[in-house]
Parts: sequence; C-alpha cells; structure tokens
Amino acid sequence: MANRRHHWDVPACSRVRKIHNPFMKYFVDSTKIKPNTNKDVIALAVGDPTFYGNMPTHAAVMDAMMKTLTGNNPNGYVDFLGSMEARKAIAQYITSTETPLQAENIIVTLGCIGALDLCIACIANPGQNILIPRPQFPIYKVICDSYEIEVKFYDSMPENNWEMNLEHMESLIDQKTAAILINNPATPMGVVYSKRHLLDFLAVAERNKLPVIADEIYAHMVFSGSTFYSLGSLSKTVPILSCCSLSKRFLVPGWRVGWIAIHDRNGVFEKQVCQTLKASAGILGSPSAVHQKALPDIFKNVPSKFFDDTVAYLERNATLLFQIFMEIPGLTPLMPRTAIFMMIKISLEKFPEFQDDQEMAEQLATEQNVYCMPGELFLLPGYLRITITLPEDKIIEACDRIKQFCAKYYKSSPSTAV
Amino acid sequence: MANRRHHWDVPACSRVRKIHNPFMKYFVDSTKIKPNTNKDVIALAVGDPTFYGNMPTHAAVMDAMMKTLTGNNPNGYVDFLGSMEARKAIAQYITSTETPLQAENIIVTLGCIGALDLCIACIANPGQNILIPRPQFPIYKVICDSYEIEVKFYDSMPENNWEMNLEHMESLIDQKTAAILINNPATPMGVVYSKRHLLDFLAVAERNKLPVIADEIYAHMVFSGSTFYSLGSLSKTVPILSCCSLSKRFLVPGWRVGWIAIHDRNGVFEKQVCQTLKASAGILGSPSAVHQKALPDIFKNVPSKFFDDTVAYLERNATLLFQIFMEIPGLTPLMPRTAIFMMIKISLEKFPEFQDDQEMAEQLATEQNVYCMPGELFLLPGYLRITITLPEDKIIEACDRIKQFCAKYYKSSPSTAV
Repeated sequence: MANRRHHWDVPACSRVRKIHNPFMKYFVDSTKIKPNTNKDVIALAVGDPTFYGNMPTHAAVMDAMMKTLTGNNPNGYVDFLGSMEARKAIAQYITSTETPLQAENIIVTLGCIGALDLCIACIANPGQNILIPRPQFPIYKVICDSYEIEVKFYDSMPENNWEMNLEHMESLIDQKTAAILINNPATPMGVVYSKRHLLDFLAVAERNKLPVIADEIYAHMVFSGSTFYSLGSLSKTVPILSCCSLSKRFLVPGWRVGWIAIHDRNGVFEKQVCQTLKASAGILGSPSAVHQKALPDIFKNVPSKFFDDTVAYLERNATLLFQIFMEIPGLTPLMPRTAIFMMIKISLEKFPEFQDDQEMAEQLATEQNVYCMPGELFLLPGYLRITITLPEDKIIEACDRIKQFCAKYYKSSPSTAV
Repeated sequence: MANRRHHWDVPACSRVRKIHNPFMKYFVDSTKIKPNTNKDVIALAVGDPTFYGNMPTHAAVMDAMMKTLTGNNPNGYVDFLGSMEARKAIAQYITSTETPLQAENIIVTLGCIGALDLCIACIANPGQNILIPRPQFPIYKVICDSYEIEVKFYDSMPENNWEMNLEHMESLIDQKTAAILINNPATPMGVVYSKRHLLDFLAVAERNKLPVIADEIYAHMVFSGSTFYSLGSLSKTVPILSCCSLSKRFLVPGWRVGWIAIHDRNGVFEKQVCQTLKASAGILGSPSAVHQKALPDIFKNVPSKFFDDTVAYLERNATLLFQIFMEIPGLTPLMPRTAIFMMIKISLEKFPEFQDDQEMAEQLATEQNVYCMPGELFLLPGYLRITITLPEDKIIEACDRIKQFCAKYYKSSPSTAV
C-alpha cells in the first residue's frame, strides 16, 4: 500500500497543459467585452462564410446530402481512412497530368486542421523543428507545440507583395529541421504566390531535401488576374503533403471534411511516412460517413459557375471594403487576391489612446459592437483582420461605425495618451 | 550550407511509427484471404449494426437531419468544443439527481474513440501508466501507445461472470499510475457489471485517489434482467470522465458524434484536467455541425420504445445464436447480456489442425466465406467474436456453415495435426 495516493490531486499531462491556442483565447476574451447593445452586433471576426446566410452552398450539395440520407444505409461506418468512394472522388477532383493521384494517396480527415495535425504529428519527432510562415494561421504553431515540435518562423516580405523570404527560410534550416510548411493561397494577407515564387520555394526544399506540408485550403479561390498553382503540380522531386477541405470552396465549413493528398515523389514517403500517416489516421478514424457518401455526387454536380460566382462575390466585397477603408484616415487596407479576409493596417501613432491592435479591436467592439480580429493573433501586430463575406448592407454599416470610431480617436499628430 | 541534407531520406516520427493497431491489421490481413466465392460473404466480424440494413435508426433521427438540412444555416461552423445546443442536449440526456451535468461539463468529440483519445492524452504523461482491462477493446492500448503512456492490464475473471479482478487491479497500482480505465457494459464479453461490483471498483479508485475513464459506449443497451448503472451516478468523490456516443444506441455509427461527460467531484478536475481537455479538444474542433444541430431533436423525439425494441431484437438474436452454438461440438458460446457481440470459446484441442483462433478464423473465411474476429485481437485467445446484429436468415446460414466447418475439423480425441 506504499504506492497509494492520499489526496485527490489529479494533474493533467504537462505536454498538453502547455497548449496555448490564441484563437480559443480570443473567443473567450471577447465574451468578456461589454458591447454597446444599442447597436446590433456585426461579426467581422468570424471565418465562417455561411454565418450571415448570404453565401449558401450550391443546391447540388444539399441534393447530394438528401440523396444520401434517403438512400441505402446512410448511417453506417466507412473505412478508417475514409470511404473508398470518397477517396476516389477526391483523387479525381485533384488529379492532373502533373499530379497523378489515386484513392490510395488520399486520407479523409476532420477538416483541414485534422489533415495538418496528422501531417505535423507524423513528419517530425519531438525536439525537431518545422519551418512555418509568419504571419500565420495560429493553429500551425498550436499543433507543433502540442507535439513538442519546435517552430521556426520564416518571414514574409510585405514590401515584396508578401512573398516568402526564401533567404531567411533557408538560413533557418538546421540538422533538426524535419519539414517546411507553406500556405498558398496565403492567409491572412490574401496573397496568391506566383509560379516563379513557388518554383523558387521548391528549389529550397529540393536543395535541402526537405519534405513540404502545403496548406492549400483556399485552392482555386483566387480573384481575377491571379492564378493558383497547386504545389504538387510544380515538382517532380519534392515530396509534398497537401492539406485541403470542402469547407471554403463548397461553403460547408461545419461538415469538417478535409483531406491529405500525398504527392509522393519517387517513393520517398512510401518508406515510412505513408504507413505512419495511415496508422495514425486509423486511430480516430474519419469524419461523418454521411458527408463522405455525398462527396462523389458533390464533386460531379456542382457546376464551375458556382465557384466563379463565389469568387466574384468575394472580389466585389473586397473591392468595396478596400475603397471605403482607403478613405478612413489612419487605416490602410491590403487588397486581397484570394480567400475571405482583408487585413487593415493601423497607423497606431495616429491613435495614441491604443497601445496595440488588440486594445483597438476591443474598444471598437465595446463602443460599436463591431468585432474584428487583432492582427497579433496572426503574428501581424498593428493590423486588424476583417471578414469580407458579409452582405453589402452589413459591410456598409460596419464601415460607417469603424469610420465614426476612428474619427473619434484619430490624432493628426502624435500625442501622449490621455 | 553545412546543414543541408543530401538525400531524400524522410523519416516519420518514431513515436507514431510504433503504433500497432490490431484492428487495422485485421482488416488488411483479411483482404489477403481468398474466400470460397461459391458462397456469398457473411460478415460476422463487422461491428456496424447498420451493415445489413435490418437495424435502421429511428425515423425521428432522419427527420431531425432533414429538418436541420432544410433549416437555417445547416452548414456553418459550431464552437470548438461542440455547439452549445448539442452540449446542453447531451447534458440533459445524461443528467440525473446523482449526476448533475451542465453543458459546460460536455465536450463533443469525433465518436467515442475521439473521447477516449482526449481523456487518455490529457490524464497521463508519457512514462506514466493507465490500468486497462483485459480482455479489452484494442483501441485502448493503441491510444496509450501513441502517447507513450504505459499500459498495465488488469484481469477479468471468467469464472466469476467476467467481473474485474479488483485485487489484481489494485496490485498493479504504483507511483506512476495516472488513471484506471473501465469499460461497462463490458465488451467483447457482453457483461453488465452489478452495482455492488461497481461500488467495489470505485472503492479501489477512492482508496488510491485515482481518476477514472469510463468507456460507457453501450450504456443502457442491456438485456432483460440486467441493469446498467452509470459510473458517474455511484460516487460522490471519485472524479470520472465518461465517454459515450450516439453510434450504438441510436444506430448511427457513421456519424462519429461522441462526447466526454466530465463528472467532476469536488472540483478535482477543475484544477487542471478540464482546462487541458478543452484546450486539446479545441485544436481539432468538433465533428459535423449538421449532426450536432440535429441532436436536440433526436434526444427529444426518439421514443424509448425504439431502444427497447433494439435491445429485444439483439437479445432474441443472441438467444438464437446461443442455442445453435451450444449444439456445435467443440464450441461454447458465452451468452451476452449487452451490446452487439457474442464470444465463442473454441476447444482448440478438438481442432488440432488449427494452432489458434486466428488460424481457425482465417480458414473459416477461406472455406465458408464467413468472417469472424479472432479473440486474440481482444487479448482473449481461444475465442471467436461474432456480431449478433445480422438478420435471422443470415444468422442461420452462418451457423450452418460454421457447423459444417467445425464437423469437418473436429477430432473427438486430441491428435497431432496432419
């Protein structure tokens, strides 16, 4: 009985305890704000395009769901790695001459985050490092932290259309570097990398023989004049794990259906990584079988016009927001070329009452009931991130309030805070 | 450039590489069997009650899905830990005077496995140990292995209606023991622990101040004459994480909607574990929002008659199978009191051509196209596991073939294999 514990002292795993998720913290913190309830809330912070009901998915998506639910055995299990039909459909959706893919190269995951989580868990040992972009979607670092994988940030170059600083990236590589993570189209800046830039990036991976994890969640969602190149289509030697999901392009974020496409070059991943990814994915198993069963019909029946219309709508909204924010003293919007967000640079010296973007975002929510995300969350301090998916009336209302708010706090010459 | 790798040698994480999932291996191995295709396949191995179409879910479940899909914003995100409405509905579904639960005590997970995975990850550090039952659902050990948490098996007592050997359990506890995992109703044996036995178990946890992870996936699915007691309802001091899902009782396994119910006694988990569970769950986020949005209606509208009918159907099937197997020389069935499986003991000395249950199961599949799971997968060698959810004609056909197979290989006195 020497081993008996005498008190109810139940510690949690110290590795997991260290997890700090800035996104979750933001949502918890924002519930503490006491907003001005004379005005209705405008959610410029949420990354859910379906939130306001103005961007529903295509009817063919819902038809496919109905067909599945009224069809043969909608509620049964599918395979650990995803239903073979869904994996086949995803492979066909992505495959091209440059990127031949089979069902075996696809793992269906719990959203794009589930895909990233598996890739990061399987590609590096604790104590090794992965290079990730800065600014970044905060979940990259959260996932790495949760596996005790070190993160090394490579910079983007705002002065150069936010291209990755490849020299900086390469200078970070050491013996413990296990992979490079790239995000293209890149959020939150809304940048689409050129073919040339992606080839230069691949040359870094090639020179250093480093595999790549590509977060391509906004694949193909690019505005007029930009072209999306999937990383897998540009290399014959660099092994690439591409992560994506139905969420954004098909406007069904709540479904949580994502995937990894394993672009294995010359059997490099075949030796260990494929097996490991599959063993790991097999523990939790794949997401809702109902959605997976609807997938083949969805890919077949949603017309390309739907995607074109979505992108055109986003671009119109972005243009409108850009024009309005250009006229607000102290703010400078970045015109996105992709995705569903816009970053707005704050000339903080013009708003001396606020120490940083977070304080400004909080005060904006408090006074105007308009919620934006502070850029700090994305390691881009001095910016606000707003969602561009809202209906036009909400956009105009939000902008009016932000304008009013900025006018109140704007000081044409720097001064000390009151 | 000294750090550059010179060859495409991409290792996978050694921790994840060590994962050995006997379930996945079984499914891969069984594809290598060349079955007798003169007979149609009978799947006695699958743990999916919806497989043959004879056990559909209740119409109210499908109605709730239809209502959700045709309702307001079915496809949007819900909160990281599950939609507040779903968490509230789950809490109400479980809550009782003895186990008061609020939405805050519920985390929605990717099936019951997702719940177990989170609990195990959060309750122990690598190098600590968790006590788990033997026989066991193999995923417990797989999950522990994947986090480098040591597993210590406590025995069950076949001679004592498969009760847990609590003396053995207590003798295993050491300074590094972080938790005890209990499975009640217990698979694969199909046992429902008595209130007295559960209280004796809780006394062990209490004496040693060890938190409990309770896999209660078959909660309430018990046959006539047995009573299910949720562990949370029996203790006022032992902190318990109860894992369950919609899968089995509502016959929607493919939905992958599970949950953790945090029965926190005297704020023990509040200090570290709750926070850690939530931080960890928040990384991947919760399963399909569509299913979660349907949950409140499902809990409200599915009548208790549906559950009674399901259990009565399973008990009828189990009784039929039990009667037939009792008549097959060399086999001894265990009559289950719960769940969807039956274990059948093989008198291996009567089947000298087979070294073990695995060889016998393989040969049975090869000759008769009937797939059973070898007991070895559950650390119960010398048994076969069969599913009791099949329609009666399939059951009778399967039994005929097994009878024929056993008659062919049965030797009334031990002899050397040919």
